[in-house]
Amino acid sequence: MRIRVVNPNTTRAMTDLIERCAGAVAGPGTRLDAVTATMGPPSIESHYDEALSVPGVLDAIRRGEADGVDGYVLACFGDPGLDAARELAAGPVVGIAEAAMRTAAHLGRGFSVVTTLGRTAGRAADLADRYGMRRFCLGVHACELPVLSLHTDPDARKIITEACRTAVETDGSDAVVLGCAGMADLCAHLREEIGVPVVDGVAAATLTVQSLVAQGLRKSGRGEFASPPPKEYVGLLRDFGTG
Amino acid sequence: MRIRVVNPNTTRAMTDLIERCAGAVAGPGTRLDAVTATMGPPSIESHYDEALSVPGVLDAIRRGEADGVDGYVLACFGDPGLDAARELAAGPVVGIAEAAMRTAAHLGRGFSVVTTLGRTAGRAADLADRYGMRRFCLGVHACELPVLSLHTDPDARKIITEACRTAVETDGSDAVVLGCAGMADLCAHLREEIGVPVVDGVAAATLTVQSLVAQGLRKSGRGEFASPPPKEYVGLLRDFGTG
Amino acid sequence: MRIRVVNPNTTRAMTDLIERCAGAVAGPGTRLDAVTATMGPPSIESHYDEALSVPGVLDAIRRGEADGVDGYVLACFGDPGLDAARELAAGPVVGIAEAAMRTAAHLGRGFSVVTTLGRTAGRAADLADRYGMRRFCLGVHACELPVLSLHTDPDARKIITEACRTAVETDGSDAVVLGCAGMADLCAHLREEIGVPVVDGVAAATLTVQSLVAQGLRKSGRGEFASPPPKEYVGLLRDFGTG
Amino acid sequence: MRIRVVNPNTTRAMTDLIERCAGAVAGPGTRLDAVTATMGPPSIESHYDEALSVPGVLDAIRRGEADGVDGYVLACFGDPGLDAARELAAGPVVGIAEAAMRTAAHLGRGFSVVTTLGRTAGRAADLADRYGMRRFCLGVHACELPVLSLHTDPDARKIITEACRTAVETDGSDAVVLGCAGMADLCAHLREEIGVPVVDGVAAATLTVQSLVAQGLRKSGRGEFASPPPKEYVGLLRDFGTG
Amino acid sequence: MRIRVVNPNTTRAMTDLIERCAGAVAGPGTRLDAVTATMGPPSIESHYDEALSVPGVLDAIRRGEADGVDGYVLACFGDPGLDAARELAAGPVVGIAEAAMRTAAHLGRGFSVVTTLGRTAGRAADLADRYGMRRFCLGVHACELPVLSLHTDPDARKIITEACRTAVETDGSDAVVLGCAGMADLCAHLREEIGVPVVDGVAAATLTVQSLVAQGLRKSGRGEFASPPPKEYVGLLRDFGTG
Amino acid sequence: MRIRVVNPNTTRAMTDLIERCAGAVAGPGTRLDAVTATMGPPSIESHYDEALSVPGVLDAIRRGEADGVDGYVLACFGDPGLDAARELAAGPVVGIAEAAMRTAAHLGRGFSVVTTLGRTAGRAADLADRYGMRRFCLGVHACELPVLSLHTDPDARKIITEACRTAVETDGSDAVVLGCAGMADLCAHLREEIGVPVVDGVAAATLTVQSLVAQGLRKSGRGEFASPPPKEYVGLLRDFGTG
Repeated sequence: MRIRVVNPNTTRAMTDLIERCAGAVAGPGTRLDAVTATMGPPSIESHYDEALSVPGVLDAIRRGEADGVDGYVLACFGDPGLDAARELAAGPVVGIAEAAMRTAAHLGRGFSVVTTLGRTAGRAADLADRYGMRRFCLGVHACELPVLSLHTDPDARKIITEACRTAVETDGSDAVVLGCAGMADLCAHLREEIGVPVVDGVAAATLTVQSLVAQGLRKSGRGEFASPPPKEYVGLLRDFGTG
Repeated sequence: MRIRVVNPNTTRAMTDLIERCAGAVAGPGTRLDAVTATMGPPSIESHYDEALSVPGVLDAIRRGEADGVDGYVLACFGDPGLDAARELAAGPVVGIAEAAMRTAAHLGRGFSVVTTLGRTAGRAADLADRYGMRRFCLGVHACELPVLSLHTDPDARKIITEACRTAVETDGSDAVVLGCAGMADLCAHLREEIGVPVVDGVAAATLTVQSLVAQGLRKSGRGEFASPPPKEYVGLLRDFGTG
Repeated sequence: MRIRVVNPNTTRAMTDLIERCAGAVAGPGTRLDAVTATMGPPSIESHYDEALSVPGVLDAIRRGEADGVDGYVLACFGDPGLDAARELAAGPVVGIAEAAMRTAAHLGRGFSVVTTLGRTAGRAADLADRYGMRRFCLGVHACELPVLSLHTDPDARKIITEACRTAVETDGSDAVVLGCAGMADLCAHLREEIGVPVVDGVAAATLTVQSLVAQGLRKSGRGEFASPPPKEYVGLLRDFGTG
Repeated sequence: MRIRVVNPNTTRAMTDLIERCAGAVAGPGTRLDAVTATMGPPSIESHYDEALSVPGVLDAIRRGEADGVDGYVLACFGDPGLDAARELAAGPVVGIAEAAMRTAAHLGRGFSVVTTLGRTAGRAADLADRYGMRRFCLGVHACELPVLSLHTDPDARKIITEACRTAVETDGSDAVVLGCAGMADLCAHLREEIGVPVVDGVAAATLTVQSLVAQGLRKSGRGEFASPPPKEYVGLLRDFGTG
Repeated sequence: MRIRVVNPNTTRAMTDLIERCAGAVAGPGTRLDAVTATMGPPSIESHYDEALSVPGVLDAIRRGEADGVDGYVLACFGDPGLDAARELAAGPVVGIAEAAMRTAAHLGRGFSVVTTLGRTAGRAADLADRYGMRRFCLGVHACELPVLSLHTDPDARKIITEACRTAVETDGSDAVVLGCAGMADLCAHLREEIGVPVVDGVAAATLTVQSLVAQGLRKSGRGEFASPPPKEYVGLLRDFGTG
Repeated sequence: MRIRVVNPNTTRAMTDLIERCAGAVAGPGTRLDAVTATMGPPSIESHYDEALSVPGVLDAIRRGEADGVDGYVLACFGDPGLDAARELAAGPVVGIAEAAMRTAAHLGRGFSVVTTLGRTAGRAADLADRYGMRRFCLGVHACELPVLSLHTDPDARKIITEACRTAVETDGSDAVVLGCAGMADLCAHLREEIGVPVVDGVAAATLTVQSLVAQGLRKSGRGEFASPPPKEYVGLLRDFGTG
């Protein structure tokens, strides 16, 4: 079984981190790799960044199909391009936000999301709605650290730990969902510090894809998620045409 | 007051149609033009098409800002890139789906959406949810005509008329919302045939933007919809970087 | 195009204020006037006041129909008698609460309503529900000033400004919706002070009606909002009979 | 204990019927009477009728307070003026729609409402929403009989019986809620014919009020439902002023 | 009319208390008794306790059917086994949580629930959802007193009074719903102290059952709540078999 | 890693079937077994059966804890006793309904549930609500086959296949969720026949538990799902006491 984790931003160091975290939970029969988006922003911190990460995501899926990949993880908490990726891929595509939220929903009454910048909290709430997770998502909290400083700011770990603690107390929640793939490696540390389960979407989505493939589950070939109708594209994006 | 209507697909004939329909309702003090996306798909009929129309939309907004445009209409019923466009533009940006649905909600208990291909119905339902219009949106109906055949198929008008009639009867709705910018010129004809109000999103959004500008209303400059944080982009999309 | 703004209370000074604010945004082709309810309470600050303002509203609509009015604004934030007025009028009728909320929903993730007395907050929340705006309406805040003191209390402006500031901070909202027609003239001042968009329902509803008329949109003549079945009324209200 | 049933329309024969049905279920310690609205429409079949029945309802409550009434039933399925009546009365006020729906919710998974004219179905659905009964209200069905023909049309009983049968089959519901006070006397007949519980709001509300009074439960004297602030009214409604 | 109140826990003193409170509101024609569960936990303070109180509840219903009981109250705020009890009984079965919440919903915009241990708050919120009461249930507050200390802890009355006061202020609610049958006797005291209506579910449910029986209302004999299909049970529970 | 699948009914043949289906998808490092409830009904087809299967489920969890089991599957589509089981177990407990619904939600816009008797459809809908899956659960369809005839009725396979086909067509769904553990072995057959993904909850829940354990995720030890407070139980259930 071949699973590919797509890092929707262009920062290779983050891809490496994600690959390590995904690999740590994947089963022995799973061949897992991670790829970096070939175009777009180095980190995703606005609707603009997210929208413009989507062509890179779709490009990665297209290559993955050529490589015979069985399932994909989209490793950015905005789940950029998820619907389009599902049309394109034959196998399952799972975003880390949907996987993390649905995983956390098995652990108790509700969870808090702890994310990077406050301006991305709205997107997390939109996704909670869309995935039917609003009743489980008791709050979205920002630690106001930019994505790329998660591993360079010397206080990052402390700041995130405090944000998690505050989130759990404020919301009365049973679990924390990490709102950024770049926090994946802090998961064990935070769990210990806070004393509640902490869910990393990269691990959750990797195992969700692995489970879907193990069950032979993939989207229906007809209807909304069938392959997109072939057509000619023009301009900068002409190579995305499927005509 | 300068309003620009952005056609998210690359088909110029559709831009002309849209410009005519928008111009027909705009006030005397409004200077209105329509632009065609410079990249992407010739019509939007899948999540894939929609996702890949977004760079063209954002490119058009960026140019509009340089041109001193006061407000924008996104003239595709999937409202592609709306959140990102709002971050980018100083003035209001309104999608035709949100404008059409909110307009129709003033006319009675509920409306039916009549769209092109059935595979796009899910997106219309998602938008109804997101805009708080689920209780007004009583059904989404497809006439299974591809966008570009709306003006070439000799039976198109008849097929759409029938789809509207069926939708109103099935849903017991008070109005029809046209689910594609390419149907804008059929609005008056359908209203007469069906006997209920028919809302064209291009007209509705043009007047919504005009009203917002007349009231001096624009997004708050802080928080979720502030300008995206500047950063370097790479690869094919490098020119979208704002660093 | 003739638009009439109905002040549901019997205070002429407030009608004058409303007329000025509506006139300031109406287009050049719009002939706009405002009328005062001929019966009922001088201000609307309870469910009781609101219920008893409705006969005055319906009387104003009936006269408007005789005068050939094309569309109506109901200028009280409780939108009193909206459904009944829609049955009675041939053209569109729009309440300032529905127009203000739907307008604000185009400006960001959510808004705060700032109203007069706390006892009216429940009605605002009910309307948010009914209009599908609950997900956009992040809070309703009272400044505890009676309607008629909005222009006589020397501290009114300061109190309202503070209430708006608190509302935005508490709710993390992107905009303020003014919860009383009597606040219409404070809109520009508040916007400047608070730094977020402030929506006045009188302006918003005037432009909504103007846009509906420009699109030729009016309720369907059949079904729930058809003219009420004719019948004899008795007692004090006998003149309201349509038999 | 004194309970007064208010018939919001001006048709005395209907008041008699309502009084009989309410009296049939009231307890031995309950002194029950029914009053006819002194102003407004002879039957309520539109939003217009409903709005204009409210002054008559409030007039009846005012008289009831002078008479020392302990609790009130509003005997029209639109629950006209309920919020305002609650402000005015010291004791509980219950509408037949809210009582019927909440009573039926104790009987199974869901109920169907069977009402008179189709144009009133929207009001019933609005009330279901407002009372939190949307998940129990599986459908609203009209038999298209005007209120005043319920007892004059020789086929009325048969038509209503058929409407109930169809409603239960279509909705898969466990109970029928009668959507008009004028159907109260058919309750037993319908129950027998259809084989599912049939709830008459007049009986349900009478017993609900009786139970509330028995528990000493009445609205809080402060907040939204406190007595309306006193003020001078003008015009036709001047006598409704509380100043 | 015979009504039986079932105490789902095994503590006789609590049954006595419940019987007194129910008897105090029942009508003169009602023959009321209370029974103690013959198996299970002495108090219900976890999902585990609640689940294991259900066999005792069903056993009590079975005996009640043999005794010709007309309707039942389940006197624990978790409404344990309600759906199963409805299948088993010919007459109505009402839980104190559903009765209390629906009763409180007639009194204003919303209520606060005050319960014993914080760990039971989630169950109360689940029930509010299931009964369509989420919009009325403005908060669930715990006083962190175990059920059996409600009448032994010398500070219990003071602690509960404070919890009610805090709940009403925090939630801005119009009423308090007592979240435990063991608080039934404090109802009058709390009402006086807090100054808002306080609803005891034991009284509310007793009167709800009495009203249902008075109206001749009982579940439909077919569908989801028909008698359970007969079958052989094995092991410890073999006597529950209905085969 | 040790996973135990609990069959909440007492029919050993069904346990064997479930164990086979769970074992077919479990990873190589997973030691999996299935146990049969030691008390209660031979199949679960009513709220009564479901409620009385819970003691057997909890007994199985208690034994599992003694055996050092790492996680549990509850293999009945009503997810009986899930909350109580979560309190009791140190590791994750997952019901087949929640796992199946959340798994299917990754595959498209929505799924249909196909269940055994129509009287159980309400429970499935309740669970969809509780798990936040209502927007994905487009319909619940019964094939009206008793659980124990799924493998004895010669037409069972054909009847279920037809029910699935009808469900997908009626609901316009992207997937089928099997509403009974006893259908687990039909999954592959149905997928082929119907042409859409078919989700078996036994497989889905087994992999969900395996994934949770692999991530080291278990409920928080405090709050609602902490171990139940110890207490003495009496009567038939005295051995369930934890005092």
